[in-house]
Amino acid sequence: MPKLSKRGTELPTSPIRKLVVYSDQAKSKGIEVLHLNIGQPDIEAPKEAINAVQNSNLNLLPYGSSQGSFSYRKKLSEYYRKNEIDVSPDEILITTGASEALTFALNSICDSGEEIIIPEPFYANYNGFASAANVKVVPVISEFNSQFQLPSLENIDEKINSKTKAILLCNPSNPTGYVYSKKEIITLCELAVKHNIFLVVDEVYREFIYTDTKHYSVIQYSRSGKNSVMIDSVSKRYSLCGARVGCIVTKNKKLMKNLMKFAHLRLSPPTYATIASEASLDAPDTYLKGVIKEYSKRREVLIKSLRKIPEVKVSEPKGAFYCIVKLPVNDAEDFSKFLLTSFHNENQTVMLAPASGFYSTPGIGKNEVRIAFILDCKKLIRAVKIIKLGLIAYKEKHPLIIE
Amino acid sequence: MPKLSKRGTELPTSPIRKLVVYSDQAKSKGIEVLHLNIGQPDIEAPKEAINAVQNSNLNLLPYGSSQGSFSYRKKLSEYYRKNEIDVSPDEILITTGASEALTFALNSICDSGEEIIIPEPFYANYNGFASAANVKVVPVISEFNSQFQLPSLENIDEKINSKTKAILLCNPSNPTGYVYSKKEIITLCELAVKHNIFLVVDEVYREFIYTDTKHYSVIQYSRSGKNSVMIDSVSKRYSLCGARVGCIVTKNKKLMKNLMKFAHLRLSPPTYATIASEASLDAPDTYLKGVIKEYSKRREVLIKSLRKIPEVKVSEPKGAFYCIVKLPVNDAEDFSKFLLTSFHNENQTVMLAPASGFYSTPGIGKNEVRIAFILDCKKLIRAVKIIKLGLIAYKEKHPLIIE
Repeated sequence: MPKLSKRGTELPTSPIRKLVVYSDQAKSKGIEVLHLNIGQPDIEAPKEAINAVQNSNLNLLPYGSSQGSFSYRKKLSEYYRKNEIDVSPDEILITTGASEALTFALNSICDSGEEIIIPEPFYANYNGFASAANVKVVPVISEFNSQFQLPSLENIDEKINSKTKAILLCNPSNPTGYVYSKKEIITLCELAVKHNIFLVVDEVYREFIYTDTKHYSVIQYSRSGKNSVMIDSVSKRYSLCGARVGCIVTKNKKLMKNLMKFAHLRLSPPTYATIASEASLDAPDTYLKGVIKEYSKRREVLIKSLRKIPEVKVSEPKGAFYCIVKLPVNDAEDFSKFLLTSFHNENQTVMLAPASGFYSTPGIGKNEVRIAFILDCKKLIRAVKIIKLGLIAYKEKHPLIIE
Repeated sequence: MPKLSKRGTELPTSPIRKLVVYSDQAKSKGIEVLHLNIGQPDIEAPKEAINAVQNSNLNLLPYGSSQGSFSYRKKLSEYYRKNEIDVSPDEILITTGASEALTFALNSICDSGEEIIIPEPFYANYNGFASAANVKVVPVISEFNSQFQLPSLENIDEKINSKTKAILLCNPSNPTGYVYSKKEIITLCELAVKHNIFLVVDEVYREFIYTDTKHYSVIQYSRSGKNSVMIDSVSKRYSLCGARVGCIVTKNKKLMKNLMKFAHLRLSPPTYATIASEASLDAPDTYLKGVIKEYSKRREVLIKSLRKIPEVKVSEPKGAFYCIVKLPVNDAEDFSKFLLTSFHNENQTVMLAPASGFYSTPGIGKNEVRIAFILDCKKLIRAVKIIKLGLIAYKEKHPLIIE
């Protein structure tokens, strides 16, 4: 048997997909599984996107530009300008999803053994991208009790050493729903300038904000232009997860030059997907307004229903479409597994994402789950009822030991 | 200015795209550039592929399966079986192009500092994929004079040491057009088993063979099942370069498990592209037969025309759609640049790919270019005439110094 690489063998598996084998088993028994575990919108994509692909008149698919077509980058720069983000087409690199954008960024910024700082809990795949690039994730804990706001500057500052190359953030945050304030972003920008490191902000949920807070992009703060990198994607904004189109934005020309080398290597982003993405930008403003209104309704319904369950605590999300929920159990992963393997109500059950996988500090978040509000209100109410009944059944078998 | 990574800064740039800046300049002066430098088919994709996308009735694009849909993998396994390659759907992982397949394979097999052996000249991006993964490419030279057949077994064997993790091959070969015989493949399979390493074969040009030689896949030799990895793609076969759909095939379950971790990390291959790729398999046999017939005609025309130029030597390709050509110049890159910057005939010129970029041993192939026969016969004849006239003009300015 030939030997495999350590980096492949040690690559962490996704906590979001970890329980898939149990949900598949439940489904094979005829049980309907309501998925609260995955950030997959069920809302229709803009008609403009779908029509553009159906009306595309291609006889063959040539390689596209490695940077992404100029026309798409130009339209994207107009979209950003509308959002008060001043960006030229040259400062944009179209990628195969935000996943590729993050991989390119990490590899262009960090060498093997170097470090990035991330407030935790964070999107679990950040761990994977870092691990694949041999980069060490240094977490700073943001607290459930303070709604996951930015940890104190001292906490972050003391983690920065000669190996630190970047701070990585998701704003609005997956999995917490926290929206970083303009002040918090500027604080981090100044910190990046002071220590001569990068600040990489994943802004794929930019529009998904449910309070009066206005989104402040890392690119808006001009003093840290050479330190700032923005990651973006059409997946959530336009319900185009399967398109696999994202982008990376930076005003740092040297960084862009190196990013482009990785882009040349994989030739080009997918043609049809970029056609759909470009056309999405033609959707009227009412499209996104309608989408946000719907998620806002779901958010309210979810929080209200969850709060009715005794001993369940919800961290109220201000953005994105996730929230972290504390359950009255010792081990939320075991409870999530229980829901799929040993419980159903009227032939339905629920799939949750155990939150411990979103922390990199071991032992934290063990009684927490991440819930995505991507189902319609009726289904959300039903799902919460199943969680409530599930908790009662689980507790009978696993009385809570207060540790 | 924050510091960038060495791996990004040291990543080699593509020799195929290196001269793009000069061809852009030529075009901006109104000169038509005939591209012999890039392997981009101009033949129509199967109607089945285009229609499937245009008739797709999706309201939104959900994430697909990370491994690729079962239905596509099942149809692919039937296609392989028709080609005498016995593969089950579970042994296939759909990737975003062969580029991603190669990246996944390298990262799953090699750690930083380990080595892979590649007969050179080889597809230039192999250098890039290896460099990005911090893997060292150890070349074994295959010779122009022997039509680039497999170097002697001793030559390969002596390069294998404790750091060697794999041998990588392209069959039929880009850039040489060489088709490895069944005997050569089996020899390498046995070598891989003997040294407990992997044999990775990029078979994207499987159908493009112009002699009686039958393609023999690395997967066909059952004795080395755990050592064998096949890379494939729809780009060339169905003129779907922009789709970005490829796959990786292996019967090594542990390897597949680790490959799948990388696949989970990037979520899924692009939806529309996989719809087109799956539908391509419904094209009648006459489609590929017609394509091969056309390339075969072009190949004959190209070789015949090139051989008429004094002092030009052609290595006759048996497969793929490239050949290596020795020119009567000292520096083929300088000549290629000359054609774009200082020469045209009736407002037309030619873009070539200097072959030195396809070697990793410095100094080899300096008087060679790679020519792709992806233009129609009339254009190919015209392009060769331009090369002939260009050589005359170039020689006047740069008399050949025999070294």
